[in-house]
Amino acid sequence: MEATTQSNLLVKMILMAWEAQNNYLNNLVSSLTDEQLTKEIAPGKNTGVYLLGHLIAVSDAMLPLLGFSDRLFPEMEEVFIKNPDKARQAFSSIAELKRRLAVVNAKLNGHFEATEIDGWLSRHTAVSSDDFVKEPHRNKLNVVVNRTGHMAYHIGQLRLLN
Amino acid sequence: MEATTQSNLLVKMILMAWEAQNNYLNNLVSSLTDEQLTKEIAPGKNTGVYLLGHLIAVSDAMLPLLGFSDRLFPEMEEVFIKNPDKARQAFSSIAELKRRLAVVNAKLNGHFEATEIDGWLSRHTAVSSDDFVKEPHRNKLNVVVNRTGHMAYHIGQLRLLN
Repeated sequence: MEATTQSNLLVKMILMAWEAQNNYLNNLVSSLTDEQLTKEIAPGKNTGVYLLGHLIAVSDAMLPLLGFSDRLFPEMEEVFIKNPDKARQAFSSIAELKRRLAVVNAKLNGHFEATEIDGWLSRHTAVSSDDFVKEPHRNKLNVVVNRTGHMAYHIGQLRLLN
Repeated sequence: MEATTQSNLLVKMILMAWEAQNNYLNNLVSSLTDEQLTKEIAPGKNTGVYLLGHLIAVSDAMLPLLGFSDRLFPEMEEVFIKNPDKARQAFSSIAELKRRLAVVNAKLNGHFEATEIDGWLSRHTAVSSDDFVKEPHRNKLNVVVNRTGHMAYHIGQLRLLN
């Protein structure tokens, strides 16, 4: 196999893993009732709705991190990333969160499809040029690798709700 | 960046993600007492010790799947993969499970370090030659990608124990 073919295959594998976790999340969230999502995943732990909001906010933050665009829902950072669940104030309805999940995914996927391998292997916006020379793995695609693991971690928790 | 350099970097990123989850698991398991590991992650759900055994058994099964060797602890499949937690009979002590986690990891990592890119992109033992021609992403490295996500999923659950 030629090296160029290898590289394209490797990028595809990473994007397929991202897509698989997103599909899993979408199916899981669709299968849960609002009542289930409102519950804590275990006594005293995060609620399903907090974890859902958290995953949307983290995906949304990938847009500027990967140099694609501003975030779509910047106000979610305060509620779902900077603060824990128990500090949460009344926020969007679950229906609105589900809508946002779809919107953020569609936006990210549109950019993903338009990104070529050189773009994927370029630095993301949170690493300096100097550091990137020494650590070329800190590229945009590696953000996708890490966020895929982060999503799987929380899916394992959300799965406890049903 | 040359295509060969790109391919090597992409393989490295995938192996780093695997290593990061394994480090996370090791640190988490070390931080939990035997009493905590014996508890259910949520009422009526799997215990920590079952999930630990499950992750060891799944990693152990990668040895034949990747064509490296036979499994080290084949008897774990029955207890920790084929059967759910609640069917579990008395098994190894937690100390023995922790030892096996380290042994399986060391064995896998030794093989990982000796694997070149062509080996990583060759088919694993659960896909036929014919299918592999059509779906070249079903290679050995993709098993690592998937198992990394699987581990993150269960780490998210084990994390509820502390």
